[in-house]
Formats: sequence, structure tokens, C-alpha cells
Amino acid sequence: MGAVEATDDARWMAAALSLGDRGRGRTAPNPNVGCVIVMDGVVVGRGWTQAGGRPHAEAMALAMAGDKSRGATCYVTLEPCAHASPRGPACADLLIAAGVARVVAAMRDPDPRTDGDGLARLAAAGVETRCGVQADAARRSMAGWLTRQRKGRPFITLKLAMSLDGCLAMADGRSRWITGPQARAHTHLERSRHEMILIGARTLAVDAPALDVRLDGLHAHSPRRLVLTRDTAAPPDGWQAIDSPEQVRALPGDHLMVEGGAGAAAAFLAADMVDRLLLYRAPILVGGGLTLPAIGLADLAQAHGRWRLLDARQLGVDRMEAYERA
Amino acid sequence: MGAVEATDDARWMAAALSLGDRGRGRTAPNPNVGCVIVMDGVVVGRGWTQAGGRPHAEAMALAMAGDKSRGATCYVTLEPCAHASPRGPACADLLIAAGVARVVAAMRDPDPRTDGDGLARLAAAGVETRCGVQADAARRSMAGWLTRQRKGRPFITLKLAMSLDGCLAMADGRSRWITGPQARAHTHLERSRHEMILIGARTLAVDAPALDVRLDGLHAHSPRRLVLTRDTAAPPDGWQAIDSPEQVRALPGDHLMVEGGAGAAAAFLAADMVDRLLLYRAPILVGGGLTLPAIGLADLAQAHGRWRLLDARQLGVDRMEAYERA
Repeated sequence: MGAVEATDDARWMAAALSLGDRGRGRTAPNPNVGCVIVMDGVVVGRGWTQAGGRPHAEAMALAMAGDKSRGATCYVTLEPCAHASPRGPACADLLIAAGVARVVAAMRDPDPRTDGDGLARLAAAGVETRCGVQADAARRSMAGWLTRQRKGRPFITLKLAMSLDGCLAMADGRSRWITGPQARAHTHLERSRHEMILIGARTLAVDAPALDVRLDGLHAHSPRRLVLTRDTAAPPDGWQAIDSPEQVRALPGDHLMVEGGAGAAAAFLAADMVDRLLLYRAPILVGGGLTLPAIGLADLAQAHGRWRLLDARQLGVDRMEAYERA
Repeated sequence: MGAVEATDDARWMAAALSLGDRGRGRTAPNPNVGCVIVMDGVVVGRGWTQAGGRPHAEAMALAMAGDKSRGATCYVTLEPCAHASPRGPACADLLIAAGVARVVAAMRDPDPRTDGDGLARLAAAGVETRCGVQADAARRSMAGWLTRQRKGRPFITLKLAMSLDGCLAMADGRSRWITGPQARAHTHLERSRHEMILIGARTLAVDAPALDVRLDGLHAHSPRRLVLTRDTAAPPDGWQAIDSPEQVRALPGDHLMVEGGAGAAAAFLAADMVDRLLLYRAPILVGGGLTLPAIGLADLAQAHGRWRLLDARQLGVDRMEAYERA
């Protein structure tokens, strides 16, 4: 394969990943897959896993492409499934039936019902296949589903809004406002990509945050609200109480955002259950405020090498930084 | 004046500022001025205030240029002085005698012995003058001397090396190492630009840092070492003890770097005696460590609008950020 074709594959896959991102936080128990079908350099079909997990991305893209999929290349962020279900036929079979000439997948499907069988079935039917294009980006895009597969729990993002000196709030708990409106709007967008959001009991008592998505067009995507508390008997209306990080394993949804405060953040870090740090830093000094409590660190050397900067951007006077596990 | 000439002026002044920066931390009680003399687009003389304040930048540049300064333009980061002293003649007179045709200054000299008289004397002698080119950059470059003039104290940089969650050390005081070798080397370079460096008594006891400049060629520029302590009776050999931030006013030198720990940092912030924040952030979480204590903040609104990001760079896995007073 030539260098140009390889570059083109990566570009089309980026388009497919972008479509797949639309489903983040809505497709559980299925992965949020994206798909584009390309014929002679023109997109003839686009699809992404719909809310609740069906239709699959390939089915949606094939339906849009119709006859134009014959001889085309299908870019899909996850290996097409090889297993039929009561909710729909196997995507590998759909692609073969549609006469697609080539299938490029970002990564193999670890689901034991597929796990290579989708690509093998396509190849056996004479379809050219390629796997591993933009694999890292695909793993990030579908991190929720992959974390559920591998660790039996949702992908957990810890969001912290802090001052330059690491204060999450003043000593009495007041945290309105550390960051500015652009950073807070960004938080709302992040919320819309999560099925669940969690805060600690003290934050709920002090701030009584609504934790809904206050962005036009995204109100319907407000996540379920959890509170981490020792007193699980009577959570406020609209809230579900849990008394340990481990309990999120049993809850439906593949994306959880921990919004603080300091105690809830430390509980998830100490349990080694944070996959991504989402930090918003305001250019202010507070001094003597609430900071992250102990997370079980024995020495400084142990702290290093755990987090890798993934994304950073300026949001007004504040700075957003996202870190992933190294 | 045309736009091209204005742009050229700014560029030549940037070169003069860069020369002036060489003297930072060494020219007290004089300002660290830089100077280039340009004839037909070629630099014929370069100078910067030498250690201890003499020779002045213009005198050094004129000595280098010799006859080539006749008809040339002199770019200087501070208005040439109008006052002769036992240590040398007035630079305005030197420039007139050398036959310079044009003098461009970044800013007027606030010293009452000059304060406009230098440029006025040049103009009276038929030299074309311009003032105010790169004035903000000049104020930053000579911030030490200007702060001494205006506030009667050195320009104070607070350096903090911290984790993402704002920890300056672990709870027991251990802080080796939060940041990596590139960030620490950058700190050494910063130290070489300060006459004085200060730490708190606890940091001295726990870390016993040398606080010297461990960079090739810069060992001789290690600053004087101060310790902020209640027990000023017997500081360790090579250290000078002070018991309040106010005492730095009486000490010689126009640049002080406060290197921590948390208590010393808070003392200078609470006294509103920090002009610049120099933050090194490592991509680690510590949790429950030493953070900045209270600095007298009554509410969060009061914290905003005080600091403006001036510079940021990546140093290995760490990030350096410099903030100035807004």
C-alpha cells in the first residue's frame, strides 16, 4: 500500500471517529462506533451507533449509501460484528451483502462473539480488509465500552476546578466561582457525554448543584446524578446514593464523571478508579482552602509516570488540561 | 514615520532589550539597560550595563562603534542619563559628542536627575529622538530597578514547584523531587538573575538546599541566601536571617526570588509583596501534602483579576508558567 493511500485511510478514519464521538455516553451497553462509506473519494454513507446501541454505525451508513456502497470502502472505528442478534443482523454480513469492496477498521472487536471473526468473514467473502488505523484514537473514543469490557466498570473522569495553588474551594467549602463562564460551559459539554455524574455529600450540602447540562440542544442529555455518602438512606429527590466507589460497577452506563468535591475525588483516586483527569485551572491564588486529601501515596517517586497530558486549551482566562493514565 | 521604519525600530529595540537582560540581577543600584547602535541596517555597537552599574550600556556601545557611530541610530532601553557623576559622564553628552543622528528610547528615565532631560538635551543638540518603543517589554526587563524606584523594595518573584493538586511537598515536608531535571535547570537559570534568594526556616531544616546556580559558566552568579525565620540569632553559615518580608527593603539588590516553602510563600503573598509568580507544575497528584496556607483572602471574587499569564513553556513533562500582576 502506498503512503498516500495510508494517509487517506487515516483521514477517513478520523471522520469516522468524529461520528462515533457523537454517541459517547448514550450507546451503552454497545460501543459508540462511527462509520463512513467512501466511493471514489466521496462520502456516500455516514453512520454512528444510535442511543441505546442500535442501529449499529455500519447499518446506518449502509442504509444511507444504498446502491452506492457497491465497490466502496467502509471505514469503521471497530471491527464489524460477526454475531447476529434479535436486535439486528451481523454487520459483517450486511457489508458483504451490500457489495463493499474494502473494509478498514480502527481496531479489532474484543467481544468474544466477534474478536477477529468479523474481519475473517469479510476476507473469506473476497472483501479487502485492513485493521489498526487510528487505533489509539479509537481506544480513546470508545474508552467507556472498553473499560466496561476489561475492568467491569465505567470509564471514570475526575473533573476538578481549582486555583493555581490547587484549591477546590475556600476553607468553608465555598467554590462559586473558581473558574469562569467558558470553563463552566465546557464542563456542561463534558457532562452531556456521560451517563452518570457523581459528587460527594458535602458538595451536595454546600452547593446543591443541579449538575444538569445547560447548553442549548443538550438538555435531554443530562446524566443521572449520584452522591457518594455514608448515609445512603435518604438521598434528595432525583439523586441516587452510593457509599463506595466500587458500587458504580453495578450501575448501567459506561461513562462516569466525578465532579468533586475533594473527598469524593480522593475516594476514587485512592481506589485507583480514575481513568482521566479533567482539570480547569483559574489564574488565582486562594491559600488555605480545600485541596485534595490523601490518596494513599507513600513517596513522591510513586506519584510519577502515572498521568500523561492528552489535551490542553485556554478557556477565557482559565486553562483546561486533560490527562490520561500513562 | 512610515510603518516599515516603526517596525524596524521595534526590532532593533528587541535586540537592545535582549542585551539589557544580560545584566539582570547584577547592575544594582543601576538599571540593566541594553543598547545597540545601527548604521545603514548594520549593528556597529552593542552594550549593556556592566556588573555593579558601570559602564553604562551607551558608553560600552559607543566605545565599540568608534567613528561608525557618526550619523547612526542609537537604540537604548532607557532614556540616556542627563547627569554626570564621579563614575562617568552623562550618556546624553557622550551620544552628542559621538555624532549620533537619532536616539530611540524604550522609556523615559523616572530618575529625577534625568526624567526627560536626557532626550531634551539630545533634541536641543539636533539629534532626532523617539521614546516609547517596546515600553512594556522594557518595564519588564528593568522591573527590579523600577520596583526599587517606585516601591522602595526589590522586585520579588515567588517560585513554586508543585503537583497538579497544588502540593509543594508531602505532608512531612519531603519535596524531592516534584519536578524533573529540565524544570530544575530552569530554576537555576532564574536564580542567576537574582541578587537574593529566600526560603523559609522549615525548608532550610528539611531540605538544606544549596540554592546555588549549578549551570556551567554561571556559578559565579549564585545569589545571596536569606532565610525567613523567627529565630534570627544564629543562621547557618552563609545564610542571612530576616524575620519579616518587610526587612528585604533594607537589603541591597533589586531582585529577590522566594523559593518557598509554603510558609515563606504565604508570608510574602499576604504582605502583597509578590510581583511575579513562577510556577513549575509536574503531572502528578500527591494528595494531602503541604499546600499554600491562608494569604488573607476573604472571598473568591477578591482572588480574581490579580494575575495575568505572561509566559508558559513545557520543560520535559513539567510545565512552567509565569504570571505578573494584572
